[in-house]
Amino acid sequence: MQFEIDVMLDYQLAEPADVLLQIEVAQMPDQRLIGDTLTVSSPEPLRPVAGGDAIGQRTWLRADGVLHIRYSAIVEVTRRRPPLLTLEAAPARLLPAEAVPYLMPSRYIGSEQFEPFVESRFGGLEGGAKAAAMLDWIAAEMAYVPGASHGATCAADSFVERQGVCRDYAHLLIGFARAAGIPARMVSAYAPNVAPQDFHAVVELWLSDGWHLVDPTGMADPDEIVRIGVGRDATDIAFMTILGSAEMKAQRVDVVRLP
Amino acid sequence: MQFEIDVMLDYQLAEPADVLLQIEVAQMPDQRLIGDTLTVSSPEPLRPVAGGDAIGQRTWLRADGVLHIRYSAIVEVTRRRPPLLTLEAAPARLLPAEAVPYLMPSRYIGSEQFEPFVESRFGGLEGGAKAAAMLDWIAAEMAYVPGASHGATCAADSFVERQGVCRDYAHLLIGFARAAGIPARMVSAYAPNVAPQDFHAVVELWLSDGWHLVDPTGMADPDEIVRIGVGRDATDIAFMTILGSAEMKAQRVDVVRLP
Amino acid sequence: MQFEIDVMLDYQLAEPADVLLQIEVAQMPDQRLIGDTLTVSSPEPLRPVAGGDAIGQRTWLRADGVLHIRYSAIVEVTRRRPPLLTLEAAPARLLPAEAVPYLMPSRYIGSEQFEPFVESRFGGLEGGAKAAAMLDWIAAEMAYVPGASHGATCAADSFVERQGVCRDYAHLLIGFARAAGIPARMVSAYAPNVAPQDFHAVVELWLSDGWHLVDPTGMADPDEIVRIGVGRDATDIAFMTILGSAEMKAQRVDVVRLP
Amino acid sequence: MQFEIDVMLDYQLAEPADVLLQIEVAQMPDQRLIGDTLTVSSPEPLRPVAGGDAIGQRTWLRADGVLHIRYSAIVEVTRRRPPLLTLEAAPARLLPAEAVPYLMPSRYIGSEQFEPFVESRFGGLEGGAKAAAMLDWIAAEMAYVPGASHGATCAADSFVERQGVCRDYAHLLIGFARAAGIPARMVSAYAPNVAPQDFHAVVELWLSDGWHLVDPTGMADPDEIVRIGVGRDATDIAFMTILGSAEMKAQRVDVVRLP
Repeated sequence: MQFEIDVMLDYQLAEPADVLLQIEVAQMPDQRLIGDTLTVSSPEPLRPVAGGDAIGQRTWLRADGVLHIRYSAIVEVTRRRPPLLTLEAAPARLLPAEAVPYLMPSRYIGSEQFEPFVESRFGGLEGGAKAAAMLDWIAAEMAYVPGASHGATCAADSFVERQGVCRDYAHLLIGFARAAGIPARMVSAYAPNVAPQDFHAVVELWLSDGWHLVDPTGMADPDEIVRIGVGRDATDIAFMTILGSAEMKAQRVDVVRLP
Repeated sequence: MQFEIDVMLDYQLAEPADVLLQIEVAQMPDQRLIGDTLTVSSPEPLRPVAGGDAIGQRTWLRADGVLHIRYSAIVEVTRRRPPLLTLEAAPARLLPAEAVPYLMPSRYIGSEQFEPFVESRFGGLEGGAKAAAMLDWIAAEMAYVPGASHGATCAADSFVERQGVCRDYAHLLIGFARAAGIPARMVSAYAPNVAPQDFHAVVELWLSDGWHLVDPTGMADPDEIVRIGVGRDATDIAFMTILGSAEMKAQRVDVVRLP
Repeated sequence: MQFEIDVMLDYQLAEPADVLLQIEVAQMPDQRLIGDTLTVSSPEPLRPVAGGDAIGQRTWLRADGVLHIRYSAIVEVTRRRPPLLTLEAAPARLLPAEAVPYLMPSRYIGSEQFEPFVESRFGGLEGGAKAAAMLDWIAAEMAYVPGASHGATCAADSFVERQGVCRDYAHLLIGFARAAGIPARMVSAYAPNVAPQDFHAVVELWLSDGWHLVDPTGMADPDEIVRIGVGRDATDIAFMTILGSAEMKAQRVDVVRLP
Repeated sequence: MQFEIDVMLDYQLAEPADVLLQIEVAQMPDQRLIGDTLTVSSPEPLRPVAGGDAIGQRTWLRADGVLHIRYSAIVEVTRRRPPLLTLEAAPARLLPAEAVPYLMPSRYIGSEQFEPFVESRFGGLEGGAKAAAMLDWIAAEMAYVPGASHGATCAADSFVERQGVCRDYAHLLIGFARAAGIPARMVSAYAPNVAPQDFHAVVELWLSDGWHLVDPTGMADPDEIVRIGVGRDATDIAFMTILGSAEMKAQRVDVVRLP
């Protein structure tokens, strides 16, 4: 399955600033990058650095005045996914080093607060079945409401407020999973069928000795998700961090499944 | 119905401090104080001041070294309570001045956060029936766990953590009620059958043009509650505020229904 | 000294809602209301209720579609203010009932957090001299930056961020004062020379057995402040609370000192 | 310079639980581990995994009933440290991948909140001189008060409260540094002269293309610090995480400089 991705970001900076970009498709075994181009209106050369967990990359750049960014990519996704219900959770003490940080609370995800709820609601299930029940709960209880959350909204807020966007859905599922002893990380991604079309945030759960993609919003089919980067929560996967102030002029993300 | 109340507080102060006490039974039409005595080991005379909403009283005192407080009271409660389900909620714009502050969020109760949940879960009900459904939800979902919460725990925390003590149950019900447009205030009280026996916190809801007592923990029969004071949340009804540091040596609350 | 006040609020509501307005000048000994008019495009009669601490008033109203509010007033202020430095702080145990709630932390003002700082920075001073030093500190350390704070910003946030608007300045001074044992309440007000001209928020400190106006932003001369209402923090003195959603179309506040 | 480290942890578990231990000295170029022994009363073999940033290690273990842990080590520290004032800060856009995560806010460190303060207080300085001024500010303004903070205390709380322990000092310095664009990470460590003797938390700043140890409490000489692990904040460097509940019976940390 091939996807064509096209991104356009237009910002205006009052003063020169360093910018960290994280919009490029990660080259990974289940998503092969056929080709991509990043064009930036920068006075200096771009400086790519490895992304978190050595997945994908971030790009440092210098911006001044008009910041015009254009990214296009073609990527082939061939993901062989076992059914969620067949996946198993390992006891914590058998987790590898790479999964350990994703068991801990993080900035937007105070996962330990969810423990009694997760135990009482999902305690009778294990592994993939437990994760599936969490996804069902979120689908039933949460409303997707653009504008209902903001940059400081954390997983506990979303649990109380019962509304949010993809970022909030992801935080909530990650909070539930970690509270149940299942490592969970957040993934920035491209996917078709995201409405309104934008950068998307989904989740990877560590089950049966590997990371498994799920989308708590239900908008993206996990077979059609193209990863950009991974991290503990929204902090780590921001598509752009401007170390200064800027005004957004225009922004567009297009993801099309090629026939 | 008569109750005998006996309280003993023993604290040790390293330095002299002013202390605000709020443990005396409020004289009110539905709870007639037959007699009470407050004895304090203070170097200065006690200074009573009116309590919040002109209900009950607080007492200022000066303490140094050993602070030994003893309070005993006999009170007759004759409360004629209409069934909760018969009570009606007024539109906000008909609320009197005394109910208005209890519609607003307060320190521990960010009630506006609960609005979508309250609307989706209880939106089909009105007035007393809505309040009864909130009480049922709390009874089903919350676990009474002494030590699970602390001084900074707010209503949203309790909603996430699904456990707490009387203070947390009260905050949560008040949060739900205010989110539904029902003014709600917190009441410090004495009641028999509170286990472990201690100062108790319950709730008053403004319905059918009056305040109506309910106990979200279900431990106290509203006919057997003896009010001390009222306020917006735990901040206002603390039984003792020491403007300095002190160590608790012993503390005992006894409430007995007289035959 | 006479002031002419003129307010215009234009909002658009998608659905009918109850609205609580708090924009009318409070009739008080040191600010005599010569005349005022409130006009509201409401389908129902307005319902005034007493304001907090029985100062001023709030007005309930019903709104639907276009909400057009116009308020104009002429008020004479004759305030005899003793110099701040001559005012004295009473020991907490001598405070009257009306001052007690203003010693406590409130929703946006976790005053107890400031105690070590307030003790180390202002501990050597008393009463009015201590308050003056707090005002000096705020003037030196805070920057008035419209847009830097938002509805959830609390006093501790403002202390960390060192910027905000009148609401944040007031929260911070109140936090300092309460941490020092000086009761402090927040006052919504009109004043000339507020830039940009808008509703203003200032502070009253309880010193020498009375409330004394101060403006931590330094924009308003305390002799020229016209009070609307008082309360524990921004929660209580909102100029308008709409129990539903609305869009602001236009808003204007004019305060002119008459010659 | 050689150090002998001796740690004893005694806990009691009501139910079997998985435990993540992070107390072993990291083998690194500037701290050579001459020998160490970890003894745990566990029914299963210990499972070591690499620590964060591939520094040091964590150890998974299974515990039940009595958990008795003993760790002893001898380590040689030969740290060649350039003077702090000679170190230089790179522009953000030249930072390598390993430093990038340490520029971001994390769970206990909302570093972006400190930006205006850091700019106004330290804005005239650069690199090591800026860091030195931050250390001076912390030394002058903070009081080391065991018990003044708790598990939820964040950097902003410590900034407001002006007191705390090594964890809070480290969070605050890291918050200042990140707000100034200097990557900063938290380090769990052993050091002599820590009073009371315990696990210690210090900071590494990314300056002049490398990590440089500093101790914002001033208790440990950076030449005498023995690193255990590194991370974004206290979350990552906990010496023990028990996935269940346990009671501490006894705990002792001894660090002695060998003659």
